[in-house]
Amino acid sequence: MQLTQGVHRAALIHPARTALACQDREYTWAQFRDRVARLAGAFRAHGIGSGDRIAMLAHNSDRYVEYYFATLWAGGVILPLNSRWSPAEIEACIRDAEPRLVIADEQHAELAQAVCRATGVATLLSTADWEGYVHGSAPVPDALRSGEDLAALFYTGGTTGRAKGVMLCHRNFFTNSMMHIANLGLGDEDAVHLHVSPMFHVAGGARLFSVTMAGATHAVLPNFEPEAFLAAIERHRVTVTVVVPTVLNRLVNHEHLDRYDISSLKLLSYGASPMPETLLRRAMDRLPGVSFLQSYGMTELSPVATMLMPRYHTFEGPDAGFTRSAGQPVFNADVAIKDANGHELPPGVVGEVCVRGPMVMQGYWRAPELSAQVLRNGYMHTGDAGYLDERGFLFLVDRVKDMIITGGENVYSVEVENVLYQHPAVHECAVIGIPSDAWGEAVHGIVTVKAGVDVTGDDLIAFVRERIAHFKAPKSVEIRKHELPKSGAGKILKSELKAPFWRAEKRGIH
Amino acid sequence: MQLTQGVHRAALIHPARTALACQDREYTWAQFRDRVARLAGAFRAHGIGSGDRIAMLAHNSDRYVEYYFATLWAGGVILPLNSRWSPAEIEACIRDAEPRLVIADEQHAELAQAVCRATGVATLLSTADWEGYVHGSAPVPDALRSGEDLAALFYTGGTTGRAKGVMLCHRNFFTNSMMHIANLGLGDEDAVHLHVSPMFHVAGGARLFSVTMAGATHAVLPNFEPEAFLAAIERHRVTVTVVVPTVLNRLVNHEHLDRYDISSLKLLSYGASPMPETLLRRAMDRLPGVSFLQSYGMTELSPVATMLMPRYHTFEGPDAGFTRSAGQPVFNADVAIKDANGHELPPGVVGEVCVRGPMVMQGYWRAPELSAQVLRNGYMHTGDAGYLDERGFLFLVDRVKDMIITGGENVYSVEVENVLYQHPAVHECAVIGIPSDAWGEAVHGIVTVKAGVDVTGDDLIAFVRERIAHFKAPKSVEIRKHELPKSGAGKILKSELKAPFWRAEKRGIH
Repeated sequence: MQLTQGVHRAALIHPARTALACQDREYTWAQFRDRVARLAGAFRAHGIGSGDRIAMLAHNSDRYVEYYFATLWAGGVILPLNSRWSPAEIEACIRDAEPRLVIADEQHAELAQAVCRATGVATLLSTADWEGYVHGSAPVPDALRSGEDLAALFYTGGTTGRAKGVMLCHRNFFTNSMMHIANLGLGDEDAVHLHVSPMFHVAGGARLFSVTMAGATHAVLPNFEPEAFLAAIERHRVTVTVVVPTVLNRLVNHEHLDRYDISSLKLLSYGASPMPETLLRRAMDRLPGVSFLQSYGMTELSPVATMLMPRYHTFEGPDAGFTRSAGQPVFNADVAIKDANGHELPPGVVGEVCVRGPMVMQGYWRAPELSAQVLRNGYMHTGDAGYLDERGFLFLVDRVKDMIITGGENVYSVEVENVLYQHPAVHECAVIGIPSDAWGEAVHGIVTVKAGVDVTGDDLIAFVRERIAHFKAPKSVEIRKHELPKSGAGKILKSELKAPFWRAEKRGIH
Repeated sequence: MQLTQGVHRAALIHPARTALACQDREYTWAQFRDRVARLAGAFRAHGIGSGDRIAMLAHNSDRYVEYYFATLWAGGVILPLNSRWSPAEIEACIRDAEPRLVIADEQHAELAQAVCRATGVATLLSTADWEGYVHGSAPVPDALRSGEDLAALFYTGGTTGRAKGVMLCHRNFFTNSMMHIANLGLGDEDAVHLHVSPMFHVAGGARLFSVTMAGATHAVLPNFEPEAFLAAIERHRVTVTVVVPTVLNRLVNHEHLDRYDISSLKLLSYGASPMPETLLRRAMDRLPGVSFLQSYGMTELSPVATMLMPRYHTFEGPDAGFTRSAGQPVFNADVAIKDANGHELPPGVVGEVCVRGPMVMQGYWRAPELSAQVLRNGYMHTGDAGYLDERGFLFLVDRVKDMIITGGENVYSVEVENVLYQHPAVHECAVIGIPSDAWGEAVHGIVTVKAGVDVTGDDLIAFVRERIAHFKAPKSVEIRKHELPKSGAGKILKSELKAPFWRAEKRGIH
């Protein structure tokens, strides 16, 4: 169950097939195996032993793919760094994960050098010297780590606290990859996967294992730019790729869409957020030969728990009505909805989405308390609030910690926010629960308004009450002058907004 | 990575889909989960705890499928008994595996009773009381054994020695099942698998896990009878099934083939032996909408190592020429050809077929020495002799122990036997190596001839020399009057034929 096995197999059965194509570089599977074995030799020469971390700070490229497999081949652990992080965040990650090597591309060389100097924990390598590493080393034998051996640390921040290193083992990605091969057609003889999602995220990274295990072809783009994306599909005869809905939106509205031959494309998989119906309809209209597939998951699930399969991307017939769901559990995923006491809830009732199966992470790196908080009774507690319907379709409603319980009723902050955003005056908003003697929690809205528009809190309350159940409408709305506090990823930090209201409460922040 | 997980998932996402159909009995996945949980309760009430074996001596039926999953659900280990074994062989197996329970159907009740009485190790249950077990017990929670936990013992005899219990864990079948789902289309919404291979063999048994993990439909026939087989395909809208070539032969030559609507059938997978070209051509001609897929493996590989995919079932174009091969390594299988010293051999050179990967058994039950003989340096040594071509297609030539090395050349006994069988006088034959001062080993033929035919050894030697290289032809042929010694499965026991020749040799029997 080792993630390098696909390299051996593909080199055996498809030696002359293209393994990897990026810009003007292209390697067959026989070449790829040889390059990976040599690069692993270079890593070993730099002291990499079993379980040592090798960090990468770079844009997507063919080197990034080789880094993944050479790291495992050498016996190491992949540690991809988010190139959008601040220097301080990168430094914190390096101090926590203690890689022996840090590799940076030319755009990140300066930053990486500063971080290496500051932390003193790692040796710096550059992708500029890549061919030297490859050709300056003899091939070394595969370390053959597998199963429960740690394969990668993916740091994930979210909206609270410091970033945590998600420990994913060979078995984790093996499970996800076999599911992908079955559901994405990666085993087809003509399968070519275009990687455009960042390889420092697990969504982009996990696909590297799936495609390799299938012995298919990797085509790589450094980032998303619509014309380059379309040109890459045409040039490499891409059959499958994964995008986020915003990227799809730019794609299907692109003026030159028809200038490219993208007839090879069979499947567009997307994730991170459900597809808006108008966008999906437009995409299905403009890409008539393409199937759509939605994935839901998180880094801790390496990363997929549920999929909305192509057949449910329809607006007619018995399979219609599911495009707002996150789909059904994938092979080997047990999805359960649990209440705060850990009891499983029946269909239709909202609770925390919990997942059990071989895709669940081993834990957070050097953080047993944090691991124990989310890994309980064999389940990963995702922190997402949702419900399952009678056929196991998962509908997500909110983050658990953003749910408000008022007068015994559950209110999902997201639902109320969606209504507030419909008001023309609202620039941004957050709905939170605040202490209330009468209701336990009261629904409270915090809003910034667009320049030159005049609106009161009562106007907005009335606006919401016209559109959804009264118990869901805010009891109070305050209008603020300054931008709401946000995380590095741009998410509004509700925890910061809540804190002042709860500080005085004996119950504390919840 | 637990093999019962598919039951939970299928009951969640396909509660009303048919799980299991056999004769006049049919259960949905919701019903199947409930029945399995109750049956597991009955097993627990009979004292089954974690790792306890439950034996089954029966023909294929829906009960057999329920037995598989209820055993695992209860925490037990599956122990299917070959209903073609002699009472002594069954007794030996029971003494070795020490099951706590033995279940028998009505046809095997008397035999099972005798064995239980003789061994005193097990309590006897009858499938005649099945509904009582199911309805007399409350559902119990799934024991959730998984990963390295033992799932099944399959006894395998072969042509030498006593039967050995092959220890297969949850991870083994998980790997095989995910490969099957990807390669057999079991994840398709309309997938219905017809089980006709005996469930006491791993080939039939492993499919039960694959189909369940996929959440597809099991259709079950007690045994192969052409009209019933065709009727079952029509009735259940079967999409995929697995047969041995002899069964396929009876099928495609059946006079009533055209009377049945078998248009649902998409894939016929076959194994145990390569398909004769004439039969394959006829099958492709008579079943034009059906794809063919060959599997090669053994019980110790749970069971598949290589597959010849549908595209290579052709006699024209660049994909032709592979129907005599066993195909290429499946996902996650490392196949290597090794010489007697364990060195890997290059393409085209014959050696022992060795397999590494998560499908390799844990070992033989209570036989560490036997396990160590075949599990070496991470590889399962199959005992099959073969070679890989430049693209990883595996061509099998013989059993390793039946290869003859004469004057430095390898001779495959099977190849010489195939030529001898072309002679009209030959009834049966075996080709073995015997001691020779001049050649190291000399090729020696042992033949029985058809009644009323007159032929000499020299005639047969000349016959062979006209057809294949002279060094492969026997140096001597003896004609025997009595039938050659055979195993229970009908294979000629070459070890017995060899023994007298080698007894006097210092080198001993090899």
